[in-house]
Amino acid sequence: MLHLHSTSPDRWLQQVDQHLHEILIDHAHCEQKAAAAAMDLMFDYVEYEDLARQMTEIVREELEHFHLVLDILKRRNIRFYKSKPGTYGRKLKELARRQEPHKAVDRLLIAGLIEARSCERFVLLRDHVNDEELTTFYGSLYESEARHHATYVRLAMHYAPEAEVRARLEELSAAEAAIITEGCPLPRMHS
Amino acid sequence: MLHLHSTSPDRWLQQVDQHLHEILIDHAHCEQKAAAAAMDLMFDYVEYEDLARQMTEIVREELEHFHLVLDILKRRNIRFYKSKPGTYGRKLKELARRQEPHKAVDRLLIAGLIEARSCERFVLLRDHVNDEELTTFYGSLYESEARHHATYVRLAMHYAPEAEVRARLEELSAAEAAIITEGCPLPRMHS
Repeated sequence: MLHLHSTSPDRWLQQVDQHLHEILIDHAHCEQKAAAAAMDLMFDYVEYEDLARQMTEIVREELEHFHLVLDILKRRNIRFYKSKPGTYGRKLKELARRQEPHKAVDRLLIAGLIEARSCERFVLLRDHVNDEELTTFYGSLYESEARHHATYVRLAMHYAPEAEVRARLEELSAAEAAIITEGCPLPRMHS
Repeated sequence: MLHLHSTSPDRWLQQVDQHLHEILIDHAHCEQKAAAAAMDLMFDYVEYEDLARQMTEIVREELEHFHLVLDILKRRNIRFYKSKPGTYGRKLKELARRQEPHKAVDRLLIAGLIEARSCERFVLLRDHVNDEELTTFYGSLYESEARHHATYVRLAMHYAPEAEVRARLEELSAAEAAIITEGCPLPRMHS
């Protein structure tokens, strides 16, 4: 359902155990970035009304999650600050083709894959982290990420035939899995 | 209350009369840009929690207005497209000082002045346009723009003493009035 070509390595859960505060701070950034990416798509493809409606809903939900993470940081007296981004998002975005309508397809599918990976990781976190507040929280998030993934894949089909979108999704997903395998030394949601 | 140094010239209402469709399309863009600007501020000043809360609310409201404009365009069979922006926003943003914390003060005050000008113009439109749906719509918007203006001015006081913020607001507002006097040949919400 999530079209991912790999499961997250154990290495990542070790990063989580050693740097939970940093992971929480990066999680807040991820929610902001997801909201901003949805807003950018809405700007760049103004003529596609269904996209505008869906992106608005995603912006709203991601900002809601952002504030839930801020609340958790606050309750734990963890100061929120602007942290250095990991390499995952940049590497993925470099894969997008430059020419329209391929660009639209790729931007939507890449946004969809980020949601899929987040979804997979929230489930891992829910089952791994020994912290009741956090397991409940992660358990409450993965469903919306899966839904966002499906929305992005569906919207991509506005710009190319379904078979072409599915083939491209497999290509991008294989590349995404390779990026995850490379990893990132900074402890991040997608490291 | 809005701290504006001028009222809009009659020239603008003539542009409105001659190009109402373009004004409506630009209005949709303005709502999107207001949402994006609030999101950018939230990103750039992550450590100021009150700002994050207020910006989230502004993003939510501006996107709601954006969809109300899209609905109006749809009912009138006006195709929404990406139009060339007017010069107002760019000219205003060039006035922002580059060094923090002055930059934060200026970005917030400039966002506040754009809201103030929108507010003034919604009232003008409400009283001028001979179209029941639009007069009701414009009448429903100006209150939130006035509120957003006040929010931005208040948040600027986090980054400088009140007297300094008030003095800078007067300077920027005088510059904003000059930009409005210059005008812009493209028919826009802020031309």
